[in-house]
Amino acid sequence: SSSLSSKYSKTSQPHVDHRVLATAQKLFTPSPYAPGSPLFLPNGTHVINKLISFLRAQYRQYGFREVLTPNIYKKSLWEVSGHWQNYKDDMYEVRGRGATGETEGEIGEDESYGLKPMNCPGHCLLFKSQNHSYKELPVRYADFSPLHRNEVSGSLSGLTRVRRFHQDDGHIFCRPHQIGKEIASALSFVDMVMNTFGLGQYRLVLSTRPEKDFIGSIELWDSAEAQLRDALNDGRRTWELNAGDGAFYGPKIDIQLQDSDGKYHQLSTIQLDLNLPRRFGLEYHVAEGEPDYNPDTPGKATPVLIHRAIFGSLERFLALLIEHYAGRWPFWLSPRQGIILSVQQDEAVLRRVQEALVQFSGFHPVDGDSGDIQPLSSSETTFLIDVDTSNQSLGKKLQRAKQLKYNLIFVLGSRNLVDGTIEVDVTGQMQSGGDNTLGKFSQVVESHLGMGF
Amino acid sequence: SSSLSSKYSKTSQPHVDHRVLATAQKLFTPSPYAPGSPLFLPNGTHVINKLISFLRAQYRQYGFREVLTPNIYKKSLWEVSGHWQNYKDDMYEVRGRGATGETEGEIGEDESYGLKPMNCPGHCLLFKSQNHSYKELPVRYADFSPLHRNEVSGSLSGLTRVRRFHQDDGHIFCRPHQIGKEIASALSFVDMVMNTFGLGQYRLVLSTRPEKDFIGSIELWDSAEAQLRDALNDGRRTWELNAGDGAFYGPKIDIQLQDSDGKYHQLSTIQLDLNLPRRFGLEYHVAEGEPDYNPDTPGKATPVLIHRAIFGSLERFLALLIEHYAGRWPFWLSPRQGIILSVQQDEAVLRRVQEALVQFSGFHPVDGDSGDIQPLSSSETTFLIDVDTSNQSLGKKLQRAKQLKYNLIFVLGSRNLVDGTIEVDVTGQMQSGGDNTLGKFSQVVESHLGMGF
Ligand SMILES: [Zn+2]
Ligand SMILES: [Zn+2]
Repeated sequence: SSSLSSKYSKTSQPHVDHRVLATAQKLFTPSPYAPGSPLFLPNGTHVINKLISFLRAQYRQYGFREVLTPNIYKKSLWEVSGHWQNYKDDMYEVRGRGATGETEGEIGEDESYGLKPMNCPGHCLLFKSQNHSYKELPVRYADFSPLHRNEVSGSLSGLTRVRRFHQDDGHIFCRPHQIGKEIASALSFVDMVMNTFGLGQYRLVLSTRPEKDFIGSIELWDSAEAQLRDALNDGRRTWELNAGDGAFYGPKIDIQLQDSDGKYHQLSTIQLDLNLPRRFGLEYHVAEGEPDYNPDTPGKATPVLIHRAIFGSLERFLALLIEHYAGRWPFWLSPRQGIILSVQQDEAVLRRVQEALVQFSGFHPVDGDSGDIQPLSSSETTFLIDVDTSNQSLGKKLQRAKQLKYNLIFVLGSRNLVDGTIEVDVTGQMQSGGDNTLGKFSQVVESHLGMGF
Repeated sequence: SSSLSSKYSKTSQPHVDHRVLATAQKLFTPSPYAPGSPLFLPNGTHVINKLISFLRAQYRQYGFREVLTPNIYKKSLWEVSGHWQNYKDDMYEVRGRGATGETEGEIGEDESYGLKPMNCPGHCLLFKSQNHSYKELPVRYADFSPLHRNEVSGSLSGLTRVRRFHQDDGHIFCRPHQIGKEIASALSFVDMVMNTFGLGQYRLVLSTRPEKDFIGSIELWDSAEAQLRDALNDGRRTWELNAGDGAFYGPKIDIQLQDSDGKYHQLSTIQLDLNLPRRFGLEYHVAEGEPDYNPDTPGKATPVLIHRAIFGSLERFLALLIEHYAGRWPFWLSPRQGIILSVQQDEAVLRRVQEALVQFSGFHPVDGDSGDIQPLSSSETTFLIDVDTSNQSLGKKLQRAKQLKYNLIFVLGSRNLVDGTIEVDVTGQMQSGGDNTLGKFSQVVESHLGMGF
């Protein structure tokens, strides 16, 4: 449903659909030329990029390394992975000169391509391209590639039912006895994300081996499930069992958010996979005496694959956040962090507005060829500050700035020129959450005005 | 050519092809399942992400705002832009349920899609989705979307001839008299990038209105060309004229790098476009009395579009940098910033190595569920530090670390435990260039060891 996230909103305001808020805040716009794939305007792109930077920082802590993989792969890859057989209707086929789709068989020029609906096969190719010793496992890849799934058009809506989306996708290749620790890390990651975004109650659901038609040995399933249970028991969240409800290729843990009616909604999944590593013939080197040493395949063992996402679809997570914050972005995510309003429009005031803009935003805008430009350091924090020096009354400007939900409104008039002050009105959510930019901004204001806020 | 960039290398070492260096440094790997679209390993992805962060910081200075646009658009969009008529053979066609390609005409479910070879049509849709006053122009969009062009397979090679790539693509929508200032800014951007990456000599080539079959009025061409000439004359680089060699839709400036033989190679282009704004019916509101006010279309005017890229293809630019630096990445871009080697492998030394790893990298790795994890702030700088605590001799470890081209090699043995020191060997290029992470790292080392390097 397109308003799935509505019930998570903690504000007492009436619920507003994310599509309505997105239009008011210029976050994204739909187009009939790209059904199910909204175009993100600068403000929406800013929030998505902030979510990605947040995740990238966490990936450092959690030992993931980001990779960048192709968007289209020849049909034969999807046959190896099994998607061509089982997922064909939901996949787009890509054709062109040299990829007419008219031949069958080998990896060849005339095979058509599949537009990728998921990253796992590409990550298997990456894993396979390198030699791996048991000492360097787990190997953890993360990927923000665009994904395409051919949803039927009747179900498309805003950011919650789309055909093109990005996941905070990750794949862990590990040794069988490492499953427990990886699951514990993943659960701790989930918990940290939920706390950071203030997303309240959630539960975990473990789905275990189906009665029949599963692949892999019962011993491996039993060991894996025992490690999943231990990790769940060691965690601090309630969990439930869905006995026999796992996929044929491995058990999984679903993460479900509770809404204000007590109902649970699927957010993301941690899925074990005993199938893809075998289909791709993945292996790592293992020394005799190690627990995963198998005399039948001396020196070689097959890794376990764990698919995991925390946000799931970034687009869907963004929709959830838009409604959760009711458009009032916390400072660190906000595309409208501050605005400077002029009380009068005389030259002295306008000059001071421009000066304050440079001080608060953290950079000098380049206008034409103004001599030797130094690169702006990408490790410095800058801020999104606008100005309103129009001829409207201050009352009108204040009203507009509040409607646009700026976090901070600065007011600058001729009487501020005398003592070098600025009036500051804190109108937005100022908690920082995922970074320390709020503290940095406070320091910036303090250093230029001799006062914090 | 695949070794186009070889001749820019300033080192006296024999030239090594970027594909060879990329394998040694684990930057990317090709796959027969994705011809012309190499898979980027973590190290290569790290460098690409650094290039993107660098550009994002510059976009703040230069007034660009990033957008995120679809990868596939219905055929009718490519008919509006003219690509379907003129570029069809180089474009991939995307089909699927509801997009069979069997019907013609309206924007409809059964139309097939084109996989985008460029971002301009999407940016025109974005511009058109909003109302624009002459006061807010220029509007500048930047986009790092993956692009696909169906190059013939014989020409594919490494990162220089690919089918999938990313551009530092930007489109400026401006008023006719704003062209000059935009071009001056773009030229200053080019110059700043060349200096930052140490890319030596380049020249600029202006191509002007063709004799016939051009679109737009001669007055607009003349004014545009005069503004381009002025911007070129005001700049600090030599430029040449290619009279009559412009496209039918606008004049352009090519940026060409000079190699050590004195030969020039195309890097990127700044291209004016009088065609797409008309095809898409783009307009902005303009008040009477303004220079672009036209009584024939009262209140409305058509913007000029400027296509511009500085790096051009990020993949091609990466290939150029790999060869230019001969694999010795400057500290700020390096995927191997430092490594800590243990002299002995006793527990006290190994404990100190782990401690130094946390201090130097700037974060605690999460291992399993270790209690309440705080998010790692995405505005803090962290560093890529590895350890080698294998049982090999220190000599072997040093040799390997140098082969792998770490910028800094730290050596830690039992005698360092007494006085809390670490030996530091600076083996890489330490200039910082695009950010101030080198200074930050020096501070980190100083604060933990009481010494810089
Ligand atoms: Zn997966
Ligand atoms: Zn373009």
